[in-house]
Amino acid sequence: MSEKPLTPDELEAALRNVGAERYHRKHRFHARQYSGKCSYEEMQAWALNRYYYQAIIPIKDATVLTRLTDTEDRRQWRKRIEDHDGLNPGDGGIERWLKLTDSLGFPREYVQSTAGLIPATRFAVDAYVAFCRDKSPVEAVASSLTELFSPTIIGERMSGMLANYDYVSKDALAYFSYRPTQAKRDADWALEYVKTHAKTLEEQRAVIKALEFKCNILWAMLDALWSAYVDHYLPPDAWVPGTIAAPRSRAA
Amino acid sequence: MSEKPLTPDELEAALRNVGAERYHRKHRFHARQYSGKCSYEEMQAWALNRYYYQAIIPIKDATVLTRLTDTEDRRQWRKRIEDHDGLNPGDGGIERWLKLTDSLGFPREYVQSTAGLIPATRFAVDAYVAFCRDKSPVEAVASSLTELFSPTIIGERMSGMLANYDYVSKDALAYFSYRPTQAKRDADWALEYVKTHAKTLEEQRAVIKALEFKCNILWAMLDALWSAYVDHYLPPDAWVPGTIAAPRSRAA
Repeated sequence: MSEKPLTPDELEAALRNVGAERYHRKHRFHARQYSGKCSYEEMQAWALNRYYYQAIIPIKDATVLTRLTDTEDRRQWRKRIEDHDGLNPGDGGIERWLKLTDSLGFPREYVQSTAGLIPATRFAVDAYVAFCRDKSPVEAVASSLTELFSPTIIGERMSGMLANYDYVSKDALAYFSYRPTQAKRDADWALEYVKTHAKTLEEQRAVIKALEFKCNILWAMLDALWSAYVDHYLPPDAWVPGTIAAPRSRAA
Repeated sequence: MSEKPLTPDELEAALRNVGAERYHRKHRFHARQYSGKCSYEEMQAWALNRYYYQAIIPIKDATVLTRLTDTEDRRQWRKRIEDHDGLNPGDGGIERWLKLTDSLGFPREYVQSTAGLIPATRFAVDAYVAFCRDKSPVEAVASSLTELFSPTIIGERMSGMLANYDYVSKDALAYFSYRPTQAKRDADWALEYVKTHAKTLEEQRAVIKALEFKCNILWAMLDALWSAYVDHYLPPDAWVPGTIAAPRSRAA
């Protein structure tokens, strides 16, 4: 990087490059999953652990909301909370994620208790909220920009999971049908915000780092999943396959 | 657990049982390390990542200090910060840990920058500080009780490392010669504090959970280390073996 600030387009290119190099689409667990190599237990563990990420998103977004001083910015950001929590009971992204864990045989109370999380999942996800509380607002907004890259991974996940796992239904994947449109709207807005607000080279470096940090969170979640359920070195407290959840069923 | 509170001795037994079941002495990385199976690069990565834990301890302890309302309690707790930061430049536990990373060829600026950490190390260690800030004082104190179990693991580490790795000197392990005495003094005090202050069954369950949580942090650090450097699935940002640090040398 030279000492002159990047143009907004150069900054966008640098941010997109973070995704190309570090987004969890490149993680070995993703390849394993969409190509049909995951065991039923691995799919269960993935959905169970990822639930915590879903559940924390509105709390993360409320944290960002406390940092935004402009009414219009807050109005825009608020949509994210509406998407995840829904406008009414039975609606919203968290509810749709629970349809997925339902379909994999988990009782909702167990999923929502988060008692069976890999501890490292919790550490990683909680670090996301802390980041949005402790860093500058533009860094907090920039850390959401993994959504720039999510439509591709979601497409691969959906087609791969439907093609390769007979127990996965389109209904169970409802979460993913909603997300690309929401993510595009949010990512477009956030990218514009970051390009407008990160003006100095120092701010630009900080927002690039923020996106790297967020990629590291998603990556660490899959590393922990792999260690526990693919390498089978289960840490204390993590859900034990074969317990609690109902066995595999087509009827789900 | 019955609905009657435990006696102080029963509580102590329950806490010691957490260590017997969950302390990272039981992790496969510890066995690998003290039995001489670690590569030089694994030893380097272990010392580099564990540095972050050492460096955060005085910050964690200062956080606990902000929660203690009794002067005598603070006077006792303060010793921990003195042990880690030292009374003078060139003294203290962090300085002694840097002697270990020195001996493994790392430039101090690199170690202290924490640029090469496995991201999951940072998430786990930062979760320890957040816990001590957000939970009750007695839970914060209880989370330090892994020190009840550390003399044994330190003994195994020291004798195992000296016997099995010709490049490890007693001098490089100075950190570990100081710790058992300090840890015993601190753990005795903390155990007494917890036995006195956790009176209700609810408080007692919370302090047991606090110690489990702390064990999970240490465990997650070794899981991440194993994934990155034994299983060789290196996450972005983590130190790349063969770079930055000087190669193996007996002269260290």
